[in-house]
Amino acid sequence: MNVKLSSAILVTILGVCTYTYGQKQKPLILSSQGTFSAGGTVAKSEGTFDPLKAWNVPQGGQSRHGDHADVFYQIPIKSKKLSMVFLHGYGQSRRSWQTTADGREGFSDMFLRKGYSTYLVDQPGRGLAGQATKPAQITAIPDDQTWFTQFRIGLYPNFNEGVQFPKDSLSLDKFFRMMTPNTGAVEEATIVNSMSAVFDKSGKGILFTHSAGGAPGWKTAIKNENVKAIVAFEPGGFVFPEGQVPEGNRGGRGIPMEDFKKLTKIPIVIYFGDYIPETETNAASLNFWRNVLATARQWAKVVNANGGDAAVVHLPEIGIKGNTHFIMLDLNSKEIADHLMRWLKEKGLDK
Amino acid sequence: MNVKLSSAILVTILGVCTYTYGQKQKPLILSSQGTFSAGGTVAKSEGTFDPLKAWNVPQGGQSRHGDHADVFYQIPIKSKKLSMVFLHGYGQSRRSWQTTADGREGFSDMFLRKGYSTYLVDQPGRGLAGQATKPAQITAIPDDQTWFTQFRIGLYPNFNEGVQFPKDSLSLDKFFRMMTPNTGAVEEATIVNSMSAVFDKSGKGILFTHSAGGAPGWKTAIKNENVKAIVAFEPGGFVFPEGQVPEGNRGGRGIPMEDFKKLTKIPIVIYFGDYIPETETNAASLNFWRNVLATARQWAKVVNANGGDAAVVHLPEIGIKGNTHFIMLDLNSKEIADHLMRWLKEKGLDK
Repeated sequence: MNVKLSSAILVTILGVCTYTYGQKQKPLILSSQGTFSAGGTVAKSEGTFDPLKAWNVPQGGQSRHGDHADVFYQIPIKSKKLSMVFLHGYGQSRRSWQTTADGREGFSDMFLRKGYSTYLVDQPGRGLAGQATKPAQITAIPDDQTWFTQFRIGLYPNFNEGVQFPKDSLSLDKFFRMMTPNTGAVEEATIVNSMSAVFDKSGKGILFTHSAGGAPGWKTAIKNENVKAIVAFEPGGFVFPEGQVPEGNRGGRGIPMEDFKKLTKIPIVIYFGDYIPETETNAASLNFWRNVLATARQWAKVVNANGGDAAVVHLPEIGIKGNTHFIMLDLNSKEIADHLMRWLKEKGLDK
Repeated sequence: MNVKLSSAILVTILGVCTYTYGQKQKPLILSSQGTFSAGGTVAKSEGTFDPLKAWNVPQGGQSRHGDHADVFYQIPIKSKKLSMVFLHGYGQSRRSWQTTADGREGFSDMFLRKGYSTYLVDQPGRGLAGQATKPAQITAIPDDQTWFTQFRIGLYPNFNEGVQFPKDSLSLDKFFRMMTPNTGAVEEATIVNSMSAVFDKSGKGILFTHSAGGAPGWKTAIKNENVKAIVAFEPGGFVFPEGQVPEGNRGGRGIPMEDFKKLTKIPIVIYFGDYIPETETNAASLNFWRNVLATARQWAKVVNANGGDAAVVHLPEIGIKGNTHFIMLDLNSKEIADHLMRWLKEKGLDK
């Protein structure tokens, strides 16, 4: 066989390989990047510390700095006025935004490329914010299949039909390895305080929340005026005005109307994915999300009745099908980002 | 008071503020960045999984993917041939390399700016690699002062004289918050396997280790030929040829000569900081490091006697004083990076 190739053909072949393998894009140009901790508490023990004793002798008279959020930020050149702050959900970390199961570019990087400064948070007692002041017992009980099912990838071992999630075993392996446990008992108020401290550093910005990050997200916006908009992916909890918490729905809690009103001053969009049934089914995981979606719709009504601007986007209703609970890392994450960019533009949040 | 300022003066003031606060530098230009997990194991439980049950009912018949390393990588445009892979020490994470106590640019970013691709690792059961397959009890016992002392910042509450560590309370707060606990019981072999898997992905590179990362670092180089050099900051353990482990020294273990020989094929530099006494003192922390330094010197002798190229740089001996155990984030981290760049150039590792 003659293997001589003209250099023009060779360049074309190499070009295609680079494009396919590396998803070749324009360079990412940053003015700076770094990390910081935000918020947190300090625990102290009784006794007197003796610095001459060996390090492996437990001693009293000491402090433990913990319960802070840990933040990795990147500032692009010519950055937009508003930053973006990303808070993960249960059992997760900033990884939810930084990557996808099949290794494509993460959701937050798509917006970094568009000129938004990004602040990726690990909440107190999670990931790189591992130092907590209250103990934890990590059982390490196998539970991958529970989360596969609860996150609506499918009813394990079956994938949902038409699901926007890669079905190869390597992707599933990567997805399972994104889970990470709580390293200490942390109250919601501690998370809210640390998130508010993040916004003190980020300046005015858009708060992204996922799942269990939703509930402390609302309270962060109430606490810190730097939160200028909220994008919530399937938030797992809501705050209603006291006395207006709907019965029978999941994750609604009452707060003073004066606080609730603050959520009516900023644009809010909430996304829900596919496979959420309209009526009760025999699958507990699906019924759970059915309740959450119903609560979200009721919540948006109350926000808007009080002069707010909250929209619930149930993706299948606008023709975007197959999304799991991890909308931002599903196979159609770019389509979701494009939809969101249009919303940001419509609300004047893209300057 | 007249507060009118000429625009020229205003620009000057703003310029100075930007320089002081943001340590203004040239933009950082990346061709890509991302995350992956490397290595790991899978645990399985007995029983049958029923996907119709609620997520909060513990069920058998499941898997748990854990014990992997978690990696954040950044590739600069026009990258050098060798990557750099960074492994942290005890109680630490990639934060050791990504930042400093006083918020200056992290050590790894200095080399990213010089054109090295950087791979920042959280080892299995730490930080963002939190998912482990064996349980952990995190006690949250206050121990900041133990580490302040053991890491040779001083004998708490006193700072060492002339120490290259910021003495303000905010910096100390940030430093303490960099600690993060083990989230599961992980054996050294698991760490070595995951580090080798990191080098499978990074390609040929230079391995940086700190403290407890030192011991698995040597074994990673023995296991994976992609490790082309090692830079070890105060490594806490060493591998000697079987039968040649020095008595009375800390952290030496025996391995087959055939394996040891692999460490004689690559250039190795080991850095030690200040405040390591020449004779026994009444401070257990200082005696510990005295033993480690003595072992390192003995180790380098054995490597070089077998045809290797290992150097121990005890910084005070070359006039660089005041370094703690965290040489890479001390106040003179840029001076250390410059010294290291000269070594890399001398060994031809800067192409």
